Amino acid sequence: MRINRRQFSQGLIVSLGAVSFRRLSFQTQLRVNGQRIMDHILALAEFGKNQQGGVSRIAYGDADKQGREYVLGLMREAKLEVRIDAAGNLIGRRAGSGGSLAPLLIGSHIDSVPEGGNYDGVVGSLGAIEVAQTLAESKVTLRHPLEVVIFQNEEGGLIGSRAMDGELTEKELDLVSRSGKTIREGIKFIGGDPARLGEVRRKKGDIAAYLELHIEQGGNLDSEKINIGVVEGIVGINWWDVTIEGFANHAGTTAMNNRQDALLAAAKFIEAVNRIVTSVPGRQVGTVGRINAFPGAPNVIPGKVVLSLELRDLDAAKIKMLYDRVYAEAQSIAAASRTKFDFKEINVNIPAPTDPRIRSLISETARDLGLSTKSMPSGAGHDAQDMARLGPVGMIFIPSVGGISHSPREFSHPADIGNGANVLLHTLLKLDK
Amino acid sequence: MRINRRQFSQGLIVSLGAVSFRRLSFQTQLRVNGQRIMDHILALAEFGKNQQGGVSRIAYGDADKQGREYVLGLMREAKLEVRIDAAGNLIGRRAGSGGSLAPLLIGSHIDSVPEGGNYDGVVGSLGAIEVAQTLAESKVTLRHPLEVVIFQNEEGGLIGSRAMDGELTEKELDLVSRSGKTIREGIKFIGGDPARLGEVRRKKGDIAAYLELHIEQGGNLDSEKINIGVVEGIVGINWWDVTIEGFANHAGTTAMNNRQDALLAAAKFIEAVNRIVTSVPGRQVGTVGRINAFPGAPNVIPGKVVLSLELRDLDAAKIKMLYDRVYAEAQSIAAASRTKFDFKEINVNIPAPTDPRIRSLISETARDLGLSTKSMPSGAGHDAQDMARLGPVGMIFIPSVGGISHSPREFSHPADIGNGANVLLHTLLKLDK
Repeated sequence: MRINRRQFSQGLIVSLGAVSFRRLSFQTQLRVNGQRIMDHILALAEFGKNQQGGVSRIAYGDADKQGREYVLGLMREAKLEVRIDAAGNLIGRRAGSGGSLAPLLIGSHIDSVPEGGNYDGVVGSLGAIEVAQTLAESKVTLRHPLEVVIFQNEEGGLIGSRAMDGELTEKELDLVSRSGKTIREGIKFIGGDPARLGEVRRKKGDIAAYLELHIEQGGNLDSEKINIGVVEGIVGINWWDVTIEGFANHAGTTAMNNRQDALLAAAKFIEAVNRIVTSVPGRQVGTVGRINAFPGAPNVIPGKVVLSLELRDLDAAKIKMLYDRVYAEAQSIAAASRTKFDFKEINVNIPAPTDPRIRSLISETARDLGLSTKSMPSGAGHDAQDMARLGPVGMIFIPSVGGISHSPREFSHPADIGNGANVLLHTLLKLDK
Repeated sequence: MRINRRQFSQGLIVSLGAVSFRRLSFQTQLRVNGQRIMDHILALAEFGKNQQGGVSRIAYGDADKQGREYVLGLMREAKLEVRIDAAGNLIGRRAGSGGSLAPLLIGSHIDSVPEGGNYDGVVGSLGAIEVAQTLAESKVTLRHPLEVVIFQNEEGGLIGSRAMDGELTEKELDLVSRSGKTIREGIKFIGGDPARLGEVRRKKGDIAAYLELHIEQGGNLDSEKINIGVVEGIVGINWWDVTIEGFANHAGTTAMNNRQDALLAAAKFIEAVNRIVTSVPGRQVGTVGRINAFPGAPNVIPGKVVLSLELRDLDAAKIKMLYDRVYAEAQSIAAASRTKFDFKEINVNIPAPTDPRIRSLISETARDLGLSTKSMPSGAGHDAQDMARLGPVGMIFIPSVGGISHSPREFSHPADIGNGANVLLHTLLKLDK
C-alpha cells in the first residue's frame, strides 16, 4: 500500500499489525516533500541573484549573510536547535534517542562562485534541511543525534569544514577572500569568532558519519540517464606550474629549423598531457588551464612559456604514474625542440575515499527506491573530503544537465533533486540502525 | 698591385698608363676605412647605452635626438650637404656630375627597439656615411647625385621611409609611439614639420636606386660562414588573430571525452602551423607568438583561446597557399574537438622584391672582392621595402653572430662590417655607370 505524505504528517497511519513492523514500513515509505525543496531553492536564489539567472553569493558578502539568515529560519522550521559555531558554520541539531552516540552529520554549503548557479551546494543544504523537516513532521527520532551542517566558504577553500577537522591554519586566516575581506574578517562578519576556532575542531570518531547530497557538476549521469551517482571518493588533485625555456628571436629572420620555440614545445606538451591521460582506462583527468607566453608578440618567437598542469584521480599512485609519464615525455620534447622544462609543484590534495559500507547503503537505498545508480569519483573537491578525516563519509550525486556547473546555466531537474533527498533520507535511516 | 687607402687619400697613385684605365683601377681598388666605421659605431653606442651593453635608442627619445646630431656631424665631415627633411629624415647630399640625373640613395636608420643592440640599422647608416667619406677623400664624383638617408623611426613602423613614398597617413600621425610622443609630436621633436610632409613625398622614378647595407638579423650567413647575403626581397608579412571557441568547464568533473578544450585545439593548431610551414621547400616562416587562454585558471578547462598567426614569404601566392592549408587544418581540428576557429586579418605587408640587376651587381661586386655570397630573403621589414615603390632597390646583408638581433647580444664582426661597406661602395660605383 502507498501512504502519502499528508497522511504521515497527520499521523493517520493504517495499522498493519505489530508496532515494530508498522514502524519499519512507515519509515521505509517516508518521502521528502520535493516541492518544498524547490520552493526553498527558488527563495534562496533571490540572495545574490544575478542577471543571467544564477547567483553571485560569494562567502562573506552581504548576499551570503542574508542567505544564511534565510537558511537558519528554515532550520528552525525543521525543528532543529540552531547555532553558529566559532568558524561560522551553521549547525542545526536534532537530539537522538541513543544516549551518548556520536552525531550523524548531513549538509553542504550555500556560498557560490562568482557568477555561479542555483544548485551547487544548495541542493545538498536544502535537501538536508528537508530531511530533518521530514523526520520532524513524521516524528521519527533517530538513535544518533542528527546535525545538519551548512559549511561556510566551501568555494573559497573548504574553510568551514577545514576549521572543523583542524586543517585551517592561523596564517590562512589573513588571506583575502573573493569578498575582499580576509578569512578572519569574514568569519566575524558571518557571526563566528576566529579567536575560538579551537572549540570547533573535532577529532576522529567525533562523528558517526557524514552524508552529503550534491549535484554531479559533470555530465556523466545526465548523458547516461542514471538517477544517482554513488561517490567512490573525492579525487586527489595535483597541480604543477611548468616553465618552458626556449629562445626568443625574430619571427621574420629566424629560419624554421633554427628556432627554439617555447610555445611550439608547449603545444606538443599540451597534446602529450591529453594523450597520456586518455591512454589508460579510468576516469582520471588532466588539464592545462592556464598558459602565458613571453614576450607575447606576434612577431617574436616565444622564448618562455609558463603553464599549469593539473592531474586528478581517486588513486594517488595513478596520479604519480601519469605525472611520471608526462614528465618523461616533456624531457623528450625538450630534447627535440632544444627547450628546457621545469616542473614546480604548487598544490597537492590527497584523494579522500568514501566509506565502502556507506556506498553499499546508498546503492541499496537507491535500488529500493527504484532508482538507477552508478559508482563514480567526485572530480571536484567537497567538504566531505575533510569530514573523511573525522569519520566515515558518503556522497550522493544527482545529474547536472549538460554537466554544466559554476555557471548560471547550472541546472538539475526537480525530480532528480527529490530523488537525491530521498536517498539521503533513507541512507541516513539505515546508517542510524 | 695593391694600393692602400693612405696612398689613395694622399693621391699617390702609381700611373699605369691611360687616364681612363688608371681611373678605373683607382676606383676598383677603393676601400672604406673599416676602423673608422667601428670608431663611429662605438661612439654612437653611447647615445641610449643600456646596462646590458646595447642601446635603448627609441625614436623621438632624447638619445635618438642626440644620436642624430652626432650622425649629422659625421655627414658634414664626409662633405655631405646636410638637411633634415619635413619628415625628420636626415639627408646628406653629394652633387653628381651628370646634370639632372635622379639621385642614388644609400642609408638605413639609427633608432633602435627598446633594449636593442648596436648594429641593427647602425651598420647601414654609418656604412653609408663611410662610403660618402671614402668618395670625398678619394675625390671621386659620381654621375648621379648621392643622397645618404638616415630614415627616422624605422623600428616603430618605417615612419620616415613611408613619409617619403606617401604611405604614411594623417591618422597615423596621432598614434602614440614607444617614446610616449605621438608620431606628429616626435617629428617636431627631431626637427621635422608634420604640416609639410607633402614636400617629402617622392614619386616613382624620383630615385635612380636605393641601396641598403644591413645585418642579417638571422643566423644563416653566420652558420654557413658566408660573407655577404644578396637580398632577393623583403618578405610579405600576413598577421591574423585566431579565436578558438570551446566550452569552459570544471577541470575536475568534466570527463576527458566530454570536453571542448579550446587550449587543446590551440595546441594542435600551433603544431599544424609548424608542420604545414615546414612541409614545403623554401624559406617561408610561420609563427604563433602570442596566446591568451580564458578564463585561464588551472582548474578550469579553457573555453576560449586567442592567438596570433604570422606567415612571411617573398611570394604572396605562397603565403596564400600556406594560409589556405592552415585554415583547412583548423577546420578539421575544430570538427574533431568540437571547437570553432575564427580568423581575423590584422595586417598585410606585401612582399617587396629587390631589383634583379642590382642583385647581380652586388653578387659580382662581392665576388670581385673575394667574398662568398648567398641569395636570401629579408625576413624582417626594412625602409628598402618603401623605397622599392620609388625605384629599384638592393640590400646587402652581413652575418649576425648567432642570428641574434633586437637584443643587446646582437653582434657582427668588424671584418664583416668592413666587407659590407666595401660591397656597398662598389655596387654604388657600378650602379652609377
